Amino acid sequence: MTQPGPVPKPPTLRDVAQRAGVHSGTASRALNPRTRSMVNSDTVKRVLRAAAALGYEPNPIARSLRTNKTHTVGMFIPDVSNPLFSSMVRGVERVLSEQDYALLLADTDNSVERESSLYTALRGRQVDGLVIATAQRDSPLIDRMLTDQVPFVLVNRVSLEHSTLAVTGDEASGVRQAVAHLAGLGHTRIAYLAGPQRTSTGVVRLAAFRQSMLEHGFTPLPEEIVECASWSEEAGSEAMARLCAAGLAATAVVAGNDMIAAGCYDVLREFGIGCPDDVSVIGFNDMPFVDKFSPPLTTVRLPNRELGEEGAALLLDRMAGQAPIAKTIVLPVSLVVRGSTAPPR
Amino acid sequence: MTQPGPVPKPPTLRDVAQRAGVHSGTASRALNPRTRSMVNSDTVKRVLRAAAALGYEPNPIARSLRTNKTHTVGMFIPDVSNPLFSSMVRGVERVLSEQDYALLLADTDNSVERESSLYTALRGRQVDGLVIATAQRDSPLIDRMLTDQVPFVLVNRVSLEHSTLAVTGDEASGVRQAVAHLAGLGHTRIAYLAGPQRTSTGVVRLAAFRQSMLEHGFTPLPEEIVECASWSEEAGSEAMARLCAAGLAATAVVAGNDMIAAGCYDVLREFGIGCPDDVSVIGFNDMPFVDKFSPPLTTVRLPNRELGEEGAALLLDRMAGQAPIAKTIVLPVSLVVRGSTAPPR
Repeated sequence: MTQPGPVPKPPTLRDVAQRAGVHSGTASRALNPRTRSMVNSDTVKRVLRAAAALGYEPNPIARSLRTNKTHTVGMFIPDVSNPLFSSMVRGVERVLSEQDYALLLADTDNSVERESSLYTALRGRQVDGLVIATAQRDSPLIDRMLTDQVPFVLVNRVSLEHSTLAVTGDEASGVRQAVAHLAGLGHTRIAYLAGPQRTSTGVVRLAAFRQSMLEHGFTPLPEEIVECASWSEEAGSEAMARLCAAGLAATAVVAGNDMIAAGCYDVLREFGIGCPDDVSVIGFNDMPFVDKFSPPLTTVRLPNRELGEEGAALLLDRMAGQAPIAKTIVLPVSLVVRGSTAPPR
Repeated sequence: MTQPGPVPKPPTLRDVAQRAGVHSGTASRALNPRTRSMVNSDTVKRVLRAAAALGYEPNPIARSLRTNKTHTVGMFIPDVSNPLFSSMVRGVERVLSEQDYALLLADTDNSVERESSLYTALRGRQVDGLVIATAQRDSPLIDRMLTDQVPFVLVNRVSLEHSTLAVTGDEASGVRQAVAHLAGLGHTRIAYLAGPQRTSTGVVRLAAFRQSMLEHGFTPLPEEIVECASWSEEAGSEAMARLCAAGLAATAVVAGNDMIAAGCYDVLREFGIGCPDDVSVIGFNDMPFVDKFSPPLTTVRLPNRELGEEGAALLLDRMAGQAPIAKTIVLPVSLVVRGSTAPPR
């Protein structure tokens, strides 16, 4: 089957968003009658005017019938048991379903081997593109996708070696806000439970922590920065137990993510250390249910749903030949202060 | 390509489990060197002896090279944001990966339309079989799978219309344990926040609640049984707000699942009603993190991981032509008593 010759490129969701001066996720919500009420009415008007001016046509089915597409996108997530990713998945689904794409999920359980066999299962004619939320630095996945010329977008991570499409939260700003909040409360000895350094997010967040501490004139002791074996509750417990067993001198702990922070809670209780009375704890991600913890967790809120929405919009544009091969979108993050942080005793 | 003629059927994981007198999940863990330490050593010996006696060969790759299989299984989940399903997914993955099957996940977001288009995306040569954890009663999915002769297994649900392969927890026993626990504490007025009655689990759990109340000689008022619009925190909040606005006379609330129970927490706080001092709350599922809630949630523990493991083992046997087309496995459940239940004031 031969491909049709070049045709004038129709305007994309991203073009509409750009013209209206909003994020693609916002434009997408404004264009969909079912989600329109979530958007400010002035913004809705601006987006609809931009769509009309450009002649934007949201449903590409008629166009794609001539092509060989499966209308299916795959998404790699590193850990189905981390609720963080469910919000991203929902964001991806919302944007894809508007254009009648189905999403298949592949959970790698943080294993490079499993990632590789899942990629083999998804490759070929089975998916038109991939959303990658896994972040193993030593994975050959990105190389394979580039070789196979499969359209893909990274979400919640960037590649340290390749230029690609990527959507990420402003991780460094998040860590900086966490340290500034603790410094503002009067903490000077702050420990860090780092995520695994084989992942790109682990590396980026730890570097931001060291930098933020420097900016406040604080010098963390080497033994007060502990690398967790994984991004899990169990690994957080183990790391926190090591800190406590060594005689915890820090009055605050910043955790690499909320799962690690959840692991801290159990250990602090076991050691009879009060949170936040004796030790403040800060997480990262604002995953579902951490507002119901006892005490409710102070954490950095990533715009998880928007990360998924922006990633999906970028991928759709790329699959339509409308986006560049490399471009990084950085979305703002914010600190959510709850009950797990307080001034030091 | 023609299929090879009939060959003597090799022994399956299920044959080994049956001979050793254990569940397939346990047999699978005992046979895998990486998970063996999770099983009692006497059981491991019994399983290994059974495998040796039967000539069981765990790796079917050599056999399947002659066939047309994709070595990929699909799994439908109703809500990627409900942490309950992550444990089931992990159970399915563990058993499948031992036999080098890849698992693709499809999140239906409780939509029959989305389920239908995801099924279309997965059908054909793309998967060898399906694990179904969605439970919409009006879905045509089961009919389509039967027509297409796709091997499938239901987990955490049963079909009310068809005889199929299914693995489920003993739901009625779970609800009975919850009501008996409350009765034992002295509660007699117990409200019920039911899951949506368009789902099979919603129907089964509500029927069990009515039956258990009858057995204790309690008569719930019609207005104290509220159907939630979905299995979500938001729907739980709405239903609980309706109960509270009507002047809550019950001293205990049994929720259809933990997400609905989580929705109760916020509303009770808003209305200034103490839990468990004024009202006891019980959930269902024991999903991750409910032990960290304030107060920690009393709930019915479903063996989620085992549900996934048993389901995957049954499906693998079915795909190998070794299991019957219809068979239901019911696994025991247990009440986990935590801080959200106490005697009535």
